[in-house]
Amino acid sequence: MPRYRITIEYDGGPFVGWQRQDNGPSIQGSIEAAIKAFSSETVTITGAGRTDAGVHALGQIAHFDLQKIFAPNKVQDALNHFLRPAPIAILEAAEVAPDFHARFSAKARHYLFRIICRRAPLVLERGHAWQVVHDLDADAMHEAAQYLVGQHDFTTFRAAECQAQSPVKTIDKLTVRRALDEISIEASARSFLHHQVRSITGTLKLVGEGKWRPKDVKAALEACDRSRCGPVAPPDGLHLVRVDY
Amino acid sequence: MPRYRITIEYDGGPFVGWQRQDNGPSIQGSIEAAIKAFSSETVTITGAGRTDAGVHALGQIAHFDLQKIFAPNKVQDALNHFLRPAPIAILEAAEVAPDFHARFSAKARHYLFRIICRRAPLVLERGHAWQVVHDLDADAMHEAAQYLVGQHDFTTFRAAECQAQSPVKTIDKLTVRRALDEISIEASARSFLHHQVRSITGTLKLVGEGKWRPKDVKAALEACDRSRCGPVAPPDGLHLVRVDY
Repeated sequence: MPRYRITIEYDGGPFVGWQRQDNGPSIQGSIEAAIKAFSSETVTITGAGRTDAGVHALGQIAHFDLQKIFAPNKVQDALNHFLRPAPIAILEAAEVAPDFHARFSAKARHYLFRIICRRAPLVLERGHAWQVVHDLDADAMHEAAQYLVGQHDFTTFRAAECQAQSPVKTIDKLTVRRALDEISIEASARSFLHHQVRSITGTLKLVGEGKWRPKDVKAALEACDRSRCGPVAPPDGLHLVRVDY
Repeated sequence: MPRYRITIEYDGGPFVGWQRQDNGPSIQGSIEAAIKAFSSETVTITGAGRTDAGVHALGQIAHFDLQKIFAPNKVQDALNHFLRPAPIAILEAAEVAPDFHARFSAKARHYLFRIICRRAPLVLERGHAWQVVHDLDADAMHEAAQYLVGQHDFTTFRAAECQAQSPVKTIDKLTVRRALDEISIEASARSFLHHQVRSITGTLKLVGEGKWRPKDVKAALEACDRSRCGPVAPPDGLHLVRVDY
């Protein structure tokens, strides 16, 4: 019974999120349907990160088991064939050891949040970045972000619906950089809480606007109080870039 | 009677092209309708480049005259308001001298053609790059491209429908570069013939695949024979990046 690992790119826009749900099409459900179409097997796939509605992936990872053996190239091409026209692409497929687990074997998850500062609405990047009409101070945002690096109780930056057992997480990297009118927030951790990157992004935006000082983010973190979080950023700008094993 | 210059970004996907036509929505027609909606004036706008159906712009330029005087910021915001939800954005508006002409005053036009080499279909870049399933030799493509730089008779790389009086054009720059799986072709000239960049791109792809040697492009150019052109590249990857005055 071979286990397969797939690397997935998707546009999260038209989906209710990664996870199969009753209220609309999900990425998980679409891939499971494509597996069924080519192999006639009914499987449940496990993803590394359960991205929200509207969140994109450049390199989501999932695994599943099949009864029959297929060449990995055949798995990739068949899934891509049956996924059309959904905006989901299998970038790679590989046969992996039976103890590989897309979620629990992951050592690091890397996210990117894109903000574009401009007066005009987004066109080419519509749905793929957060448009902010005024300029943001990326240096101040980066300074504030450094208070969040390391192991902390992230209760302030955690959605009420979060199912994690503990609010304590370790952020390995949180950088804020500007290139022309675009601000990129890169976040790396073994795992994240629900809405953690979007909560952090929305809070750092307050610093970028000059409404908060960088030290206010430290105080908000230490308060361990959800009401001290800034407005949660929209999903559009968030991308799951890569998962390390 | 003030003259306005606007800088325009658009996703060419849903349009029949820049130019107003009877068979569907055009970028020109959409902007003219937005001008009418905010100013009640019926104008014809003139663009720097008449991009084809499916071709995108990061910085198209157009001009038009109004009877009434409006602050440029007001022109920008009002057009962006009335353009919604069309994927067209006015990045900048300015009042310019009455002898400014978006088409005839242009000193250089800069285009970018994006090719992505990968087995999986495009998702995040769907409609914005040309997917090629095999790898291409960017160095060989660049070498071939250099035969096209300078003043030449470009009959080989000109669409049958081209309305230019002469097939002689001067390409100032034509570079081919690779970054990961993406190949970028950057082309600069005072002006281009109809389908010139897409014809050149399709021909350079033959070199990238090893089907043609770089010198075969020189021979095709010198033949001044449309039948010696490679298959014309699709519009998806083409972007009008900037116009210089």
